[in-house]
Amino acid sequence: MRIDATVLEDLARGCAVLGAGGGGDTYAGVLACRHAIALHGPVPVVDLDDLDDDAVVLPVGGIGAPTVSIEKVGNVVADGNLVRTYERVSGRRVGALMGSEIGGGNGLVAVMMAARLGLPVADADGMGRAFPEIPQVTMELAGVSPAPAVLADERGNVVVSWPADGAFAERIARVLSIEFGGDVLGTDYAMPASVARTATVRGSVSLAIRIGRALRSEDDPVGALLAAVAGRRLLGGKLVDVDRVVEDGFVRGAAGIEGLGDDRGRTLRVSIQNENLLATEDGRVRASTPDIITVLDTGTGAAVPTERLRYGQRVDVVAFACDPVWRTPAGLALAGPRHFGYDVDYVPFEALT
Amino acid sequence: MRIDATVLEDLARGCAVLGAGGGGDTYAGVLACRHAIALHGPVPVVDLDDLDDDAVVLPVGGIGAPTVSIEKVGNVVADGNLVRTYERVSGRRVGALMGSEIGGGNGLVAVMMAARLGLPVADADGMGRAFPEIPQVTMELAGVSPAPAVLADERGNVVVSWPADGAFAERIARVLSIEFGGDVLGTDYAMPASVARTATVRGSVSLAIRIGRALRSEDDPVGALLAAVAGRRLLGGKLVDVDRVVEDGFVRGAAGIEGLGDDRGRTLRVSIQNENLLATEDGRVRASTPDIITVLDTGTGAAVPTERLRYGQRVDVVAFACDPVWRTPAGLALAGPRHFGYDVDYVPFEALT
Repeated sequence: MRIDATVLEDLARGCAVLGAGGGGDTYAGVLACRHAIALHGPVPVVDLDDLDDDAVVLPVGGIGAPTVSIEKVGNVVADGNLVRTYERVSGRRVGALMGSEIGGGNGLVAVMMAARLGLPVADADGMGRAFPEIPQVTMELAGVSPAPAVLADERGNVVVSWPADGAFAERIARVLSIEFGGDVLGTDYAMPASVARTATVRGSVSLAIRIGRALRSEDDPVGALLAAVAGRRLLGGKLVDVDRVVEDGFVRGAAGIEGLGDDRGRTLRVSIQNENLLATEDGRVRASTPDIITVLDTGTGAAVPTERLRYGQRVDVVAFACDPVWRTPAGLALAGPRHFGYDVDYVPFEALT
Repeated sequence: MRIDATVLEDLARGCAVLGAGGGGDTYAGVLACRHAIALHGPVPVVDLDDLDDDAVVLPVGGIGAPTVSIEKVGNVVADGNLVRTYERVSGRRVGALMGSEIGGGNGLVAVMMAARLGLPVADADGMGRAFPEIPQVTMELAGVSPAPAVLADERGNVVVSWPADGAFAERIARVLSIEFGGDVLGTDYAMPASVARTATVRGSVSLAIRIGRALRSEDDPVGALLAAVAGRRLLGGKLVDVDRVVEDGFVRGAAGIEGLGDDRGRTLRVSIQNENLLATEDGRVRASTPDIITVLDTGTGAAVPTERLRYGQRVDVVAFACDPVWRTPAGLALAGPRHFGYDVDYVPFEALT
């Protein structure tokens, strides 16, 4: 499979849905990828089984508040520096790029970089969705080291770190992304393909493309999506309340959705920390992280990133299952509701009514 | 020359004087050096002329608020990581360590590390005093690159950066030193000895030791010091006002000294940003950065670091000349009074009455 300009549109729509509102807007990412593909040709997508065992799979992505990344289209200085510096300090050659997270614009960063650098993209990612923190990746659960982690910005700043642990990888990247203007390209948790085969979420690029295709349905895009991901509509209605701030490099807040049509009289509240993390109705949990909660534009079925939620929008809120590894005790400790400060136990969305 | 436990005491007293109140307290540094010298033996001091042309001279120091560094004695994890990581990413062997700044406790960091790592210390530094910001070094004036800059903390965190410029070297180190608890070991502006011979302040380790010896005078330590550095006493009196806060990783504030004895009726105000940067009397400048303004304990002649200034202390405030390179237009742009936000032109202290 290759990602050309047409497949790119499907991929981007799918990444937006998998992003659960986070991972950054896909708009600038589509522009940057389209430009890179026009210049350098389509990007090959490789299955991890087809890479040599010792080929390095390099997870990449943008780090920072998504509200800022909309304004900073990916740049050529940073991505060259990122891969070159990783290869220089590790002494290893990169065999394929991979999105640290498939969700949102970050699902496209690897494609843009791969086109420019002449590398393939692995059909996998580190989350199967988007999460706000660096160590919230399946590689952390698999015991892969985040080091050497590299950050690069558009001015030529390059920083490599060997963090004491995943939490310090997060702290280092967060303060530097703020210092570099709110957004920076980064790589961490690099590994050989032999490790990546069990340490990543496999097939997520293909899944995103399938989701994008389902959303092309003109009759009922939301219904087609729900069929594709075995998901559930939590509520259809109107955004009546958006409370959102950018602080410490994060988008935080909550949105209220008032039901319309069959859902009239009901209200859903979605809590946000870069991603949609918790959906409650009358104080009862309807779905929570690590399951994927996505707000869709009712007319087009397009996923709405948290930084674009606005009063009066007609939306459908849907939920579907995360990768099974996130439902294990270790996965929930890293990305369950309590990790984000919500005082609720995780229950798979399928078991909630 | 070798630095043993006796020479160490002189060196430390001299570093405190050259620190102009900054560079960190020498107390913890003396303890750490004494321990390292007891374990590994005296540290050889080498003249830059005696090093091979291509021997790398590695400037090292602690970065952070001096108030914090008092509480964090230099640690073994960080200094090994610092040198090893520099050698690994640069592919070059370190021939000698050098203090980034001779002033304060930072003048002792190179000695402590050199003892532990079995390296000599160069008889030179990057300031001839202490300054608060990373790029305020003679190497910056000489066009040496700060990259690769390395930071290491006691938990095992290691960060290497290739900053876009000296200002970014400062920003990266500052936010990370705060993130790592307010103090971190760092190296930057490494260079071969052939470059160091003209890009550093030569002989500053010897000078610090001479100053320390002068202060051993039992009759008149302050007078002996002034003779050794061709300095001037600005005022002798009592600290009546200390206004000091730690913010953004810096110690900021001002101290008021009321004259006693011959100086009765006069008042000196010393403005502080980690170092004593400006001394004024009745609104007129008596001395300013880059010249060295030091507050001495009247009884012992010991220099008082800015973070130890306290109400009621009997002190002599002295001024003496900085290295001539700081009095050039480029030197003043980097470290003159206007750089620090003081609205005064620099005049050499000898020309002020």
